[in-house]
Parts: sequence; structure tokens; C-alpha cells
Amino acid sequence: MRAVDIIEKKRDGKQLTRDEIHFIIRGYTAGEIADYQVSALLMAIFLRGMTDAEAIALTEEMLYSGEVLDLSELGRLRVDKHSTGGVGDKTSLVIAPVVAAAGVPVPMISGRALAHSGGTLDKLDSIQGFRTNLSLAEFRATLARVGVALIGQTKEIAPADRKLYALRDVTATVPCRPLMAASIMSKKMAEGITGLVLDVKVGNGAFMKTEAEARQLAELMIQIARGLGKDCVALLTDMNQPLGRAVGNALEMIEAFDALRGQGPDDFITLCRELSAEMLVLGGAVATVDEGRARYDELIATGTALEKMREIITAQSGDPRVLDDYSLLPTARRERAVLARRSGTVQAIDTAAIGRASMLLGAGRLRLDSKIDLSVGLTISARIGDRVEESTPLAVMHFNDAVLVDEAAAVILQAYQIGAEATAPPVLIKEVLR
Amino acid sequence: MRAVDIIEKKRDGKQLTRDEIHFIIRGYTAGEIADYQVSALLMAIFLRGMTDAEAIALTEEMLYSGEVLDLSELGRLRVDKHSTGGVGDKTSLVIAPVVAAAGVPVPMISGRALAHSGGTLDKLDSIQGFRTNLSLAEFRATLARVGVALIGQTKEIAPADRKLYALRDVTATVPCRPLMAASIMSKKMAEGITGLVLDVKVGNGAFMKTEAEARQLAELMIQIARGLGKDCVALLTDMNQPLGRAVGNALEMIEAFDALRGQGPDDFITLCRELSAEMLVLGGAVATVDEGRARYDELIATGTALEKMREIITAQSGDPRVLDDYSLLPTARRERAVLARRSGTVQAIDTAAIGRASMLLGAGRLRLDSKIDLSVGLTISARIGDRVEESTPLAVMHFNDAVLVDEAAAVILQAYQIGAEATAPPVLIKEVLR
Repeated sequence: MRAVDIIEKKRDGKQLTRDEIHFIIRGYTAGEIADYQVSALLMAIFLRGMTDAEAIALTEEMLYSGEVLDLSELGRLRVDKHSTGGVGDKTSLVIAPVVAAAGVPVPMISGRALAHSGGTLDKLDSIQGFRTNLSLAEFRATLARVGVALIGQTKEIAPADRKLYALRDVTATVPCRPLMAASIMSKKMAEGITGLVLDVKVGNGAFMKTEAEARQLAELMIQIARGLGKDCVALLTDMNQPLGRAVGNALEMIEAFDALRGQGPDDFITLCRELSAEMLVLGGAVATVDEGRARYDELIATGTALEKMREIITAQSGDPRVLDDYSLLPTARRERAVLARRSGTVQAIDTAAIGRASMLLGAGRLRLDSKIDLSVGLTISARIGDRVEESTPLAVMHFNDAVLVDEAAAVILQAYQIGAEATAPPVLIKEVLR
Repeated sequence: MRAVDIIEKKRDGKQLTRDEIHFIIRGYTAGEIADYQVSALLMAIFLRGMTDAEAIALTEEMLYSGEVLDLSELGRLRVDKHSTGGVGDKTSLVIAPVVAAAGVPVPMISGRALAHSGGTLDKLDSIQGFRTNLSLAEFRATLARVGVALIGQTKEIAPADRKLYALRDVTATVPCRPLMAASIMSKKMAEGITGLVLDVKVGNGAFMKTEAEARQLAELMIQIARGLGKDCVALLTDMNQPLGRAVGNALEMIEAFDALRGQGPDDFITLCRELSAEMLVLGGAVATVDEGRARYDELIATGTALEKMREIITAQSGDPRVLDDYSLLPTARRERAVLARRSGTVQAIDTAAIGRASMLLGAGRLRLDSKIDLSVGLTISARIGDRVEESTPLAVMHFNDAVLVDEAAAVILQAYQIGAEATAPPVLIKEVLR
């Protein structure tokens, strides 16, 4: 078998066999097939597509390029959630303690911020001392003790994905459905879970811009999960404006802590509740989604979820006092409001631009190795459908270094479309695929 | 400017600007842009295509990645010929001395065999002592003295092409019209010529399988040549069977020497005559193609062309006695005829398979660094339209090492399609594009 023949086959729009996909992934992971051959193949896949069977085979080959955890010692069912990424998306920080508090193990392996979208690991970094770089042995031990652990992708998990993702990033082959699905699912399937809830973001702040695209991606990921014997449910949720009010690492941490106390923006709390309810069903803690919602409310109201978060922080070497004293989180020295230039109703918000404005303040990562400022970010004041008056705030910028603050303000102003017509807020949960 | 943005643009089917093409070619030649980015771009070009304007810009950037010869000291007009490659194509070895003998300078930079098609340089290697690796200074001096020189691509000529060609070879991006045109033309335009005759092969032994494809390639190359201020004429010629009778390096050399004496297969002689006549027009030696044909006949009949060949061989350190004593060429120790299994008329010949059979005997190059046996090859006995009887020879194999000779015989037998119907030989010259 030769790599060039496999590239040619995909170039000509033909379906690759499992053996061919195995040959490429194994050879690439082992360093025997060159980057330049794989990048040509990735571009051919981008432009020619893959069948579901190919995507499933690709996922499995990437999955078995590394260690696949067996966590059956934790109980019969273990669940996780994955979001395709957006702006202000901090649901993991609420969901993980809630679901674990219900007795369902949550082995959660998360990512870092990339482009305009945030990452759970960076948010956790804002807690003094919190370690996300647990070894797999520590991960397993923490799960056994606390019922939940929050870590980053280790070198043992899907090494083929790590290598391929880095290559896709520099060859314009990231936004490709089968490649995205295989990348996400190969990591999630390695976690030792039995069920997965997918939060597939759709809108101008998401990778998927239309519901049709998001649905296709969701369906493919569900197929992959089922092909590997896992339960899977996908929610298509709105990303045409930031989720909640906080954008930026420590700011989002505060919003998540508030949500664990039952406080905060409706949209964010609703999404945490829906995703948790689905996870509780997959985890066998409740029989129906309705029961799941009730259990969520109860775990919040009784403080059980908040206490689980305290346990998590303590178990992963963080300072748990942060839960009661937000001043222990990194705090930006300066604030400035971005004021509306005219009165009217917010018609639309360019959400990716809001994410980029936050990056300009230092909250995001322009490159994989960029250092980020955990204290900075935005508080969103005006959301779609809100009435604003001239010179009232659209958003508040939290920052330290003033160098790019004017640019950030300009990007935010530009991102808001304000008009005369009344506008309804977007529907948050667009579809549930089971 | 970033390579990844340029890849994305072409991935999405957009036209690249000259600046973007310049950025890629300059950066790649300088080693600043990685192979894996360029290979992704090549695949995007393969699948999305290029406009003529992009192909012209690409050719120029590749051309000016290296040295561009100025040979105006040789006279006002200088011409060359390029063939897109086929089986048994040894016209350069006749044309170069003929045209030079008419006083038109021929600065000819040729290639080596690749895949099933032969290369002029390998054929010249069969002459004891012949040097094709002249420096550019030696090339220039030989041209001034002899009026013609036959060399290989030097490191100064279109280095971007050399790098890109090697990458295309391993990433399944070779048979792509704009990339082929730019590769060919960037080298030819560096030769210091004023006119170029293109022999665009079409058929089952050529890269272009249909006349439509061949015509598109020819038209693009003519456009590129004219964009760079050169005269250019293209002949679409048949490659549905080997050209002439000889396939293999020393065997083809003999057929070329015979042609310089006016002897040999009609198709081969006709093609040499037509291509030479066109070159003589572009070189200003004659006014019309008809006059060019007459001049060809005269240069052959008087022995002038043969004497020019003797001069070339001597000038490039070869042993000129080979012209009169073919036993000085490498000669295979063994011969075996491949016999027809049934009577009938030759309907078709899989010409690429004939090329591969010759490779199996050792005449071709399976990899760029393979060593080839200059003495081996085939003599074609039966051509399309010929009547054959059971057990009469289709071809004679000339070989030394018997290891793969049975495989070669099987490939040849398989390549011949023999049937009951009378079949006309294919038309040799299908079209002339001016």
C-alpha cells in the first residue's frame, strides 16, 4: 500500500477502505508518512468529502492510535458533554458538578481556547492552584473519589488527532464535517464514557453557520457514537449571540459559580439545565428529561451541586475559597463601557466579532502558544431584542493593557446591528436529535 | 500575507492574485513555506483549477525563481521543441541536429524517463562518454560553436519547478493541466529561445487521454508562451501506439540514427519532419511549413543532419564512431519474441502497458533514483491495423536479466487487442494549433 495511491483515490472522489484509512493514520502517527502527503489527503477529503462509513473508520483509527480508558470500575454508566465551541460557553463548569452530584460519573477531557471561541481549561486556570494536567492515573483516582474530574487531552489520548489537528490548522482544512466529527469523537470515545451529550452550536459565533450544517454534523457524530456502542443525544443550540453575559476566563468562572447558586442569565441557566437533564437520563440517574430538569433544580436549590464544585476544586489542588470570594480570581484593573451610538433595538450581534474583541483585550489565543490574560474580557449588556438608548452601554470591557482597547471597542460597536424594528431573541434550543 | 489564507482562498475556488502566487513560490523556493502547506495548495489547485491568468502568473514566478538565459548573442531567433511524453518518442534526437544544421540555434534542455514514458537524457547516456550535465557556461559555449546543445535541467533553471515537481509526484497532483503547463513552460522559457514547437501527445500512452484535454493543455501553453513574448505552435499527435518501432534507450538511439540517414518507420519519420518544419519556420530558416519539409528532406539526403549529429556527439565528449558502428551502444545479451495467440488484425495497443513492459525489462525508472539498463527494451513488430497470424511476433524483447521477462511478455500480450475487423491505423497528426 502506498500513500500516494490513497491520496489519488480520494482526489478522484472514491471511498477509502478501512485498511487504507488504517494505513494512513497508523503511518502518520508513527512518523512514517510525511506531513505533506497527509495534508494533500486532508485537502482532498475537504473537497471530496467522506461517507459516514469512512468517517466512522477514521474516528476509530484515531481513537485506537492511543489509549482508550476503561472506567467500568466507576459503575455501569459514565457520561460527558461536548460543545462544538462558541462565545461565552461555560456550561461544562456547571454541568460537571451537577451531574456528578447526582451520582453519575463525569470523566471530562476538555480543550483550550482557539480562534474566537473559549476553552474550559483556560477558565479553570483562573482558579489559583487548579491542576488540569492530571496524569491518567490521577484522573482515574479523582474520578473514583469525587465522581468527576476535569482535565486536558493527555499525550496518551488520540495522539493521531493531536497531530492531525495541528496540520489542519495550517492547511485550511479545519471546517470539514467528517474531519471535525472524527476529531471530536476520537477524543470523547477514549474517555471511558457510555453516553455523550453533544451541544452543537449554530450561528454566527459557531463553526456551523446554518442549522442544516449543524444537523449534518450532529447526525454524523451520533452515528459514530452508536457505531462504537455509545449512547448519544445532540442539541442544536443558538450561537447568534454570546451565551450568558460573561465572555473571558475569570468572568465566565464567576458566571458559572453564580449559576451553581441558581443565579444568572436565563439563557445560560436554561442551557445548563437542559444539557444536564439529558446527561442525567443517559447516566441512568433519572428516567425522563423532565425528571432530569427537576433533579437539576433540586441539586442547585440544596447547594449540593455547589458543594460538588468545592470538592472538585479541592481534589484538583485549587483554592476552594474562591467559591465564596470572587476577588481571589484574577481581576482586570480597568473597565470601560462601549456605548450605543443610536437608539433602537438590537437586531443582530456578530458573535465571532465579540469573541475577537475579547481576544484583542487578551482573553484569547491568537496562536496555540499565545499566553492569555485570565482576568480580561467582556460583560455583555445588550442582547438581541433588547431596546438600547443612545449612550447606554452595549458591553463593558475589562482590561489591563490599553494598547488594543480602542480596536476592541470599535469591533464591538461594529458587531452590534441596531435598528428600528422590534426583534425577537433567537430560539435557544433549536432541535434535539436522539 | 499568510500561506494558510491563500490555501483557503483556492480551497474555496477563488482566483489567486499574482502577489499571492509570488508569495507562495518565492517562500517555498526559499524554504520559508512548508511542504505540507504547498501540498495542500496543490491539491486545492488540482480539484478547483486555475484560470489562464493564474497559470501564466505561476509559470512566470517559477521561471523567475531561477536563471533565465539570454542567448541573443546566437542570433535573432532560437527554437526548441517539447513533447509531453510518450512511448518510443525519440524525435528530439533527430530534430535537434536537423534544425541546427539549417543554421537555427537549438538550446535544448531535456528530461529523464518517468513512469512509462522515456526521456531524452537517458537515451543520450547510451552513447559512450556523452555528457548531458554541461554547466550553463559550457552549454552556452557549445551552442555558440555547434549551434545546438542537449543538456538536462541544471540547478539554476527554475528551481521552484524542481521542488514542486518532486512534491507533486508523491501527492498525486501530477496530472493537472495548469500545473503541467507551468512546469513545462517555466523550464522552456528559461532556455533563451524565441520560439517553441509543442508536441502534445494524446492517447492511451500519453498523460492526456482525449483530444479535448490535449487541446486545452496545448492552448494554455500557447497562451503562456505568447504572454512571455515567444512564438509557439502546438501539434496534437497520436500516442495510441508506440512511436516508431524501438522502445528502450540504445534501441531508440539506433532508430534516431537511422532516421538521420532517411531510414526507418514512416510514422516516426513523418513526425520528425513535421516538427522540424515548424521549427524551421519559427527559426526563420524558411518561410512556410512546406519549405520546411523540403529543407528537412534535403538536410537528410545530403547527410548534413547526420554530420551535425556527429558534431554534437563530439562537442559533448561522446564517441562519434557510434554513428557508424551501433555495436558501440549497449546491447542486450538476449532476445525473445512475444507471439500472437490468435490471428486477426491489431485493433488497439495499450501503449502505457507497452511502456511498463519495457520498464519491467529494466529500461525505465520506477523511482527517481532507479538505475536503468540502457541496452534493454522492445522492438514493436505489429502495429494498429496490421494483420497478424497465430505465433507470429507482436514484439521482440531485448533483455539481460530474465527475472521479470515472463511478466513483461504477459503485459505485452495483454496490451494487444486482436480482432476480426479491419482497422485503420490512427491518424498521426491530429491537429496543429497556431
